[in-house]
Amino acid sequence: MTRPALGYPPAPMAKKEANAISPTRAENYPEWYQQVIRAADLAEQSPVRGCMVIKPWGYALWENIQRTLDAKFKATGHKNAYFPIFIPKSFLEKEAKHVEGFAKECAVVTHHRLEVGPKGDLIPAGELEEPLIVRPTSETIIGAMFSKWVQSYRDLPLLINQWANVVRWELRTRMFLRTTEFLWQEGHTVHATADEAIAEARKMLDVYAEFAETYMAMPVIKGEKSAAERFPGAVSTWTIEAMMQDGKALQAGTSHFLGQNFAKSSEIKYLDADGALHFAWTTSWGVSTRLIGGLLMTHSDDDGFVVPPRLAPAHIVILPVTAKAEDPAAVLAYCRKLRDDLQQVRYHERNVEVELDERDLRGGEKAWSWVKKGVPLRLEIGPRDMAQDAVFVARRDKPPSEKQSVPREAFISGVTALLDSIQSNLFERAKAFRAGRTRELNTKEEFYAYFGARDDESTAAQSGFALAHFSGDPAVEAKIKEDLSVTLRCIPLDASTGGPGTCPFTGQPSAQRVVWAKSY
Amino acid sequence: MTRPALGYPPAPMAKKEANAISPTRAENYPEWYQQVIRAADLAEQSPVRGCMVIKPWGYALWENIQRTLDAKFKATGHKNAYFPIFIPKSFLEKEAKHVEGFAKECAVVTHHRLEVGPKGDLIPAGELEEPLIVRPTSETIIGAMFSKWVQSYRDLPLLINQWANVVRWELRTRMFLRTTEFLWQEGHTVHATADEAIAEARKMLDVYAEFAETYMAMPVIKGEKSAAERFPGAVSTWTIEAMMQDGKALQAGTSHFLGQNFAKSSEIKYLDADGALHFAWTTSWGVSTRLIGGLLMTHSDDDGFVVPPRLAPAHIVILPVTAKAEDPAAVLAYCRKLRDDLQQVRYHERNVEVELDERDLRGGEKAWSWVKKGVPLRLEIGPRDMAQDAVFVARRDKPPSEKQSVPREAFISGVTALLDSIQSNLFERAKAFRAGRTRELNTKEEFYAYFGARDDESTAAQSGFALAHFSGDPAVEAKIKEDLSVTLRCIPLDASTGGPGTCPFTGQPSAQRVVWAKSY
Repeated sequence: MTRPALGYPPAPMAKKEANAISPTRAENYPEWYQQVIRAADLAEQSPVRGCMVIKPWGYALWENIQRTLDAKFKATGHKNAYFPIFIPKSFLEKEAKHVEGFAKECAVVTHHRLEVGPKGDLIPAGELEEPLIVRPTSETIIGAMFSKWVQSYRDLPLLINQWANVVRWELRTRMFLRTTEFLWQEGHTVHATADEAIAEARKMLDVYAEFAETYMAMPVIKGEKSAAERFPGAVSTWTIEAMMQDGKALQAGTSHFLGQNFAKSSEIKYLDADGALHFAWTTSWGVSTRLIGGLLMTHSDDDGFVVPPRLAPAHIVILPVTAKAEDPAAVLAYCRKLRDDLQQVRYHERNVEVELDERDLRGGEKAWSWVKKGVPLRLEIGPRDMAQDAVFVARRDKPPSEKQSVPREAFISGVTALLDSIQSNLFERAKAFRAGRTRELNTKEEFYAYFGARDDESTAAQSGFALAHFSGDPAVEAKIKEDLSVTLRCIPLDASTGGPGTCPFTGQPSAQRVVWAKSY
Repeated sequence: MTRPALGYPPAPMAKKEANAISPTRAENYPEWYQQVIRAADLAEQSPVRGCMVIKPWGYALWENIQRTLDAKFKATGHKNAYFPIFIPKSFLEKEAKHVEGFAKECAVVTHHRLEVGPKGDLIPAGELEEPLIVRPTSETIIGAMFSKWVQSYRDLPLLINQWANVVRWELRTRMFLRTTEFLWQEGHTVHATADEAIAEARKMLDVYAEFAETYMAMPVIKGEKSAAERFPGAVSTWTIEAMMQDGKALQAGTSHFLGQNFAKSSEIKYLDADGALHFAWTTSWGVSTRLIGGLLMTHSDDDGFVVPPRLAPAHIVILPVTAKAEDPAAVLAYCRKLRDDLQQVRYHERNVEVELDERDLRGGEKAWSWVKKGVPLRLEIGPRDMAQDAVFVARRDKPPSEKQSVPREAFISGVTALLDSIQSNLFERAKAFRAGRTRELNTKEEFYAYFGARDDESTAAQSGFALAHFSGDPAVEAKIKEDLSVTLRCIPLDASTGGPGTCPFTGQPSAQRVVWAKSY
């Protein structure tokens, strides 16, 4: 909708025809991803290999994710604590599969000072007796503490969470999705029985899924990982899997039932009510700044970032249009008052957050900068809007040129409903996209044709999730990964993928269809 | 006050005569400190040299500190961001004094994987071309990013804060006060002029001081550090100094004007409105988990931790007294209802937080555990209290046996005033303690007698802050440090220490008295 009724010149935005992000998703998806991060000013590469800098707009997203999840963890009885960033090498070695999984890519601290060397430059000195590993995850160091904290059944369950940074020396990194250092939370719990530990791991998976769908507006499939995809040292790993706009899967969060593996390697034992000594049962579960990559790839478009209102660093930006105003100060005053009034409105767990952009920039450039940052609502306010006591509203989930004049009071009283409507629209859109890119496949030929050759990007761009029966043979799973770069994302927990059938790869019986996809 | 009126048996607590913490402050202050941490379950040593584990009760304190300060930083225009934990060695080397200050005690990452060695154990492999330092502070890595972010005067001021962990390889560590790894925030800002940067550094010092006094109930002296005590690379360092109960000073927070030192080493330049290129002016400022050590040593007593209400992880604990109850379930139900009602009450920036201790423990043991944890208010509720619709209240800032019966509704409606009264009582008590241990000294003899010999703990235990004139001679300062282990804590910013006089060490003129003390 343009606005001739008010006699304005066409909004500068309306002139724009090309998309704000180049290349578009269709042209080059991986490069589009990097460009959206840059255009929204979420993060950038640092001079340290594989480490990114999370800039204020990106970090505010993480703060919103953190605050929301933290409240959910506390509501389910967990308490936060903090454990050392360093793990002695011998601790990592205690659990065989665990060290196998992490030793290949970890940062090793070997010295504790720098000294002037023979050439006058500083060289590492003060060699440590035992190298320290910068934590890639904390099961072993936390296990060592839990072995002291847990003595009796009265100490159980022990429900702890940590917000921390971790380091994994990944060969190929991509901002938010896979970085050398990343921020995360790791829950670690101890239970008296296997059943209780499994129930805990499943409960936290539900917390993650509910958060992903309700806050991130990102539909996820809850399921169990196959043995090949399990966390190193876990008995069972559950996951939430989301579909990105290139059809690839993103593992967005995992929850592990660790059995007694870590209890045994860390000596976590408890006396039961009858005085008998038992190894305990443990879980761990985590989500990370990777969620921000998932959020981006779920909703963003060829004009930039799109952020669901419930997690938006700001819900609304006000753009004063003063270029032709007789009294620019009056327009600014009107905008400030509007901001103050809007910031009184409660939206879910916080107040509506409003940016008032008073920068000295051309209107078009200014408006586009907020489109690219993904703010849910943009309000343009000039002298005529002010005269009519109205605001000119654009929704980020609609085309940039689609705008509507709304009386000020009606806008304020309806703003939470409007934000909720954007939130649910994003979720429905993402669900529809996933449905459109999910197929039930019944033969090996269909399956191979669907995913195309390993390096055939044009075919890959058309694929998505394949729901196919599978008899569980690890060799078949490995062959599919080798042939197609496709992995078993999960064995869904609900019955949505139907009942028993026949595995198209082996002809053996299959209990249910499982989810296959290329992935991040 | 005991409670014969209600015909109760004497509260188990009243039987206790010895103090809950052994040794007492007077007997062995450093050991008392460790025992309070243990008794309150705030933290414990980890198996990693010099690193502690912050346990839930201690971490909840940090969360409250963090939430409060974060709001103040945001209210003063700062935004949070996150920078890499690793600093390339060459970055640290860019600023000469800075590297000199930190090279001697830093964790150096030299390898990026572990490999099976000749003896079958895992050894560091994949040597890095350039060693990475685990950040001891982030001026250099943040400076490298700021040099990209700052181009024009329009980009200034740039006001950034980071919440992070840092590592300094300290030789002697003490929980919270000096640990190899600690949690902190570091503000980093860039300005167009020296005056603006100085104003920023001073403003953040004020934020720290206001937080220390209003939230921590810890009186502080704001002042400037002498050259000898400056942050490595700073032009000026301002500090807030608090007095602990052994009379020693704790540097609780610092704010630095960095001049152009880091702008030059990191190439942070901007174009002014006339198109001329200038080096910018920067600041940095930080507080850390050390604040928790300061909080502990300001208020705690020989019965354990005492936490000011504004930062308390829980404001109130309810202790159901069911041992002699005919209907224990009714007492518990009454307690739960009371908890729910109290949790509706708003106290400063959050709701009143209440613990209901239903553990199966003897009443005395249970009550003492909360005394040791420092909860501001303890409520004992048994059948007779319930019958009278009253609560039996004990304040942590009064002797454990001093309790009072208060009608339930009066307690609820008066609870915020009661908490505020505890908060201000703690602050006044700490101010009185500091006043009692602060002396104006006018001769070198008095000064040396006051602080005693370097290792004379009995004399040291009687000392505190000395306010003495000082002409500023660094040699005198060094000699005093060597002779007495006493340092110049700060040159106070306000006029409270009076005007000009004569330096007792040199006979030279002195602009004002400065603060001397032994310190942590």
